[in-house]
Amino acid sequence: MADGTAEIGLIGLGTMGSALALNIAEKGFDIAVWNRTPEVTRDFAKEAGELAPRVTPTETLEELVAAIAEPRAIILMVPAGDPVDQQMAALRPLLGPDDLIIDAGNANFHDTNRRAAEDGGPFLGIGVSGGEEGARHGPAIMGGGDRANWDRVAHILTAISAKYQDHPCAAWMGEEGAGHFVKAVHNGIEYADMQMIAEIYGILRDGMGMEAAEIGDVFERWNDGPLDSYLVEISAKVAKATDAATGRPLLSVIEDAAGQKGTGRWTVIEAQHLGAPIPAIDSAVMARNVSARRDLRAEGERLFGRGPETMPDAPALETLEKALIAGKIMCYAQGFSMIARASDQFGWALPLPEIARVWRAGCIIRSEMLNDMASALTDDPSRLLIFAPDFAERVKDTQESLRETVIAAQRAGIAVPALGSGLAWFDLIRTARGTADMIQGQRDFFGLHGFVRMDTGATDQHGPWAG
Amino acid sequence: MADGTAEIGLIGLGTMGSALALNIAEKGFDIAVWNRTPEVTRDFAKEAGELAPRVTPTETLEELVAAIAEPRAIILMVPAGDPVDQQMAALRPLLGPDDLIIDAGNANFHDTNRRAAEDGGPFLGIGVSGGEEGARHGPAIMGGGDRANWDRVAHILTAISAKYQDHPCAAWMGEEGAGHFVKAVHNGIEYADMQMIAEIYGILRDGMGMEAAEIGDVFERWNDGPLDSYLVEISAKVAKATDAATGRPLLSVIEDAAGQKGTGRWTVIEAQHLGAPIPAIDSAVMARNVSARRDLRAEGERLFGRGPETMPDAPALETLEKALIAGKIMCYAQGFSMIARASDQFGWALPLPEIARVWRAGCIIRSEMLNDMASALTDDPSRLLIFAPDFAERVKDTQESLRETVIAAQRAGIAVPALGSGLAWFDLIRTARGTADMIQGQRDFFGLHGFVRMDTGATDQHGPWAG
Repeated sequence: MADGTAEIGLIGLGTMGSALALNIAEKGFDIAVWNRTPEVTRDFAKEAGELAPRVTPTETLEELVAAIAEPRAIILMVPAGDPVDQQMAALRPLLGPDDLIIDAGNANFHDTNRRAAEDGGPFLGIGVSGGEEGARHGPAIMGGGDRANWDRVAHILTAISAKYQDHPCAAWMGEEGAGHFVKAVHNGIEYADMQMIAEIYGILRDGMGMEAAEIGDVFERWNDGPLDSYLVEISAKVAKATDAATGRPLLSVIEDAAGQKGTGRWTVIEAQHLGAPIPAIDSAVMARNVSARRDLRAEGERLFGRGPETMPDAPALETLEKALIAGKIMCYAQGFSMIARASDQFGWALPLPEIARVWRAGCIIRSEMLNDMASALTDDPSRLLIFAPDFAERVKDTQESLRETVIAAQRAGIAVPALGSGLAWFDLIRTARGTADMIQGQRDFFGLHGFVRMDTGATDQHGPWAG
Repeated sequence: MADGTAEIGLIGLGTMGSALALNIAEKGFDIAVWNRTPEVTRDFAKEAGELAPRVTPTETLEELVAAIAEPRAIILMVPAGDPVDQQMAALRPLLGPDDLIIDAGNANFHDTNRRAAEDGGPFLGIGVSGGEEGARHGPAIMGGGDRANWDRVAHILTAISAKYQDHPCAAWMGEEGAGHFVKAVHNGIEYADMQMIAEIYGILRDGMGMEAAEIGDVFERWNDGPLDSYLVEISAKVAKATDAATGRPLLSVIEDAAGQKGTGRWTVIEAQHLGAPIPAIDSAVMARNVSARRDLRAEGERLFGRGPETMPDAPALETLEKALIAGKIMCYAQGFSMIARASDQFGWALPLPEIARVWRAGCIIRSEMLNDMASALTDDPSRLLIFAPDFAERVKDTQESLRETVIAAQRAGIAVPALGSGLAWFDLIRTARGTADMIQGQRDFFGLHGFVRMDTGATDQHGPWAG
């Protein structure tokens, strides 16, 4: 491959960057690559195998830039945060005015907003989901930045993306950090989805005394029904896996302290700024935080014991399945509602149906249900998902199972924070006359904050305590 | 009163500033006051009545400064945010190097941290709780900044503060924004406390069909027991109040859409940064957000109906009382745990027992139970509150009532997000073997994030899917 002919460049050959570069080469695009450590670049080129003819390894940034056809497009796949700023600062002066930098890392979308404003040159921030496997063979890609810049590289990004049937899971989400924002909400939903599965696992394991392999069978069966999804599929595999060292179920040797890289937390924080209620995600992040405090939990069990090992009246498996369906719908309804709110507040026109379509394959939360959500959101993107006729029917069919499951778990002392918060949110959202009249009364009593009258609509009213 | 003899100055004669100024004068301190609008200052002076001899109204900032004895201390009571920065920028150049500025508004503690670093002169940020009534007759005061600066004005601040028995509810919390941080957590707890009361109100009203006045009687009785607190006291008064215009119960005319000024949200956001689980506060903020969407809730009720108006097997009133006690304990345990975490993370030595003591009077969350919390935290401030013997006993005595109440409400379709999240947190915290093994298994499956082995403690382990 001659100098100045690569169709795209990529900086950062870590796990994700390497996988993405090979994916790009495999789809027939010439790519120039560079890594801070030249050995990494050389090893990458060596291991590119039959894709090597499409890969130009370079040892300096100047060499990288020279290897790419103008106007250039260069993907950054470096750790989120300062490294991105540093890399952009080093790269931008070497580029022409039309050269495009694409941050494909896990940036906080506020940083992407800032970079879009500060960088001066063409810039995109794209959220890439699907882990190493996705990056290598087809991730979901959520793009943000000027539409014209997206259009310049859309042929490459759609080619490397996952496909749902024939639909590429790559799309432009909006200006500035819109792509990274949508990716953050994706990750928040991922937290909640995982937590709800873990709660059902807890009921099966502790409440019903099932072995890990049996639990794997249950998830496997569910994966053939309405819950068909990557996370349920891999939960089955995790539950059925055997630990090589001991021959015991793998789950029994895994410590129950969940790690996190912060994207769930970002979503919760952003939801607070937006005033968007996403309790399923709140609860999932909370549960991970508590899981990490194993010392506290051991002390808690010593002091307070816990519920029975087995439930006297365990819900039927079909009830648990429906509970998980209902919980999942509540969680996605919250997530899409948060996206709609951000769209208004940030002046973005986030395409809700397209987001659901992009998430159908490649990403961690991919599922069949997202296809139906895409249809429901196409009909009316501004409507709360559970109000769309198709999903309203599902909710009617499953909400009692969610209720029964949450109640049974609570009775047995089994923690169900995410399923429980899904139920609480549902009960709040279907209660026309809530109880915030008491809160407004209290606020007026102690702070004269005023309230609105139900009968006349008059605002800034006060109780008899007001002077 | 001659020039240059006032013991303190105050800027900003809004509701809170006026009340605080009168409180200071009443306690025998000469005070000089200034407001941006001179008419406000003149009116204030006119209405000071018998306190007028202790009040020096001034019409320019220069006049204000000249009226105060050196080294000066000046309280700012202006709206949080930019107005504070603007006021400080206008004031500081007029002051001597030892003159102290005290921001007594509702600042975000991050701003207070920044101002402490940038201002250059002596500076304190103090959280003042108790509304107008508290400011006038005795608020709770949480101070932050250099201890030496606090000591300069401690005699005034303790004199004007509320007293619990003889203990003044004013104390130095730590460096920088420590006072405003503690105030923010106070407000977060206030949100949760109010929400839990509102949830019990919902059970009494909708589940048990009680009239507002009867509900008021219940709260009034509870206020003579372990729930003795300002919020339960005023809830009784709110429930028993009659609307002058219609003669109907006041609650029935108050719109069920809760307002908020943002401090609950700040607490939730900060807890996320700290990795501190405070689900009762999360849920309370969430419930306020949902309450504001009356349109959605009406649509939800139309589509999904709601639970029965009356519960077939309503919990006994004593059960509901105990549920509220348990919920309250969970909420405070979470709040104090967040404070302990901030103390570590910010390098502050936040005095947990003193915080509980300061909150015993003057502030919105004042209650008898805080006195017992102060004792429990004195024994061991680093221990989770529910693990302290006295509170562990109360939890043992009440947790089944919380469980029964949450379950009964859920069965009837009555939303109990805060009580439910309190229960979920309790069940998480007393389960030594949780379910995050599934989450770690999933994370390792899709992202090779690695897990810790239970048996050997080996870190960065992988399942059989790892190449």
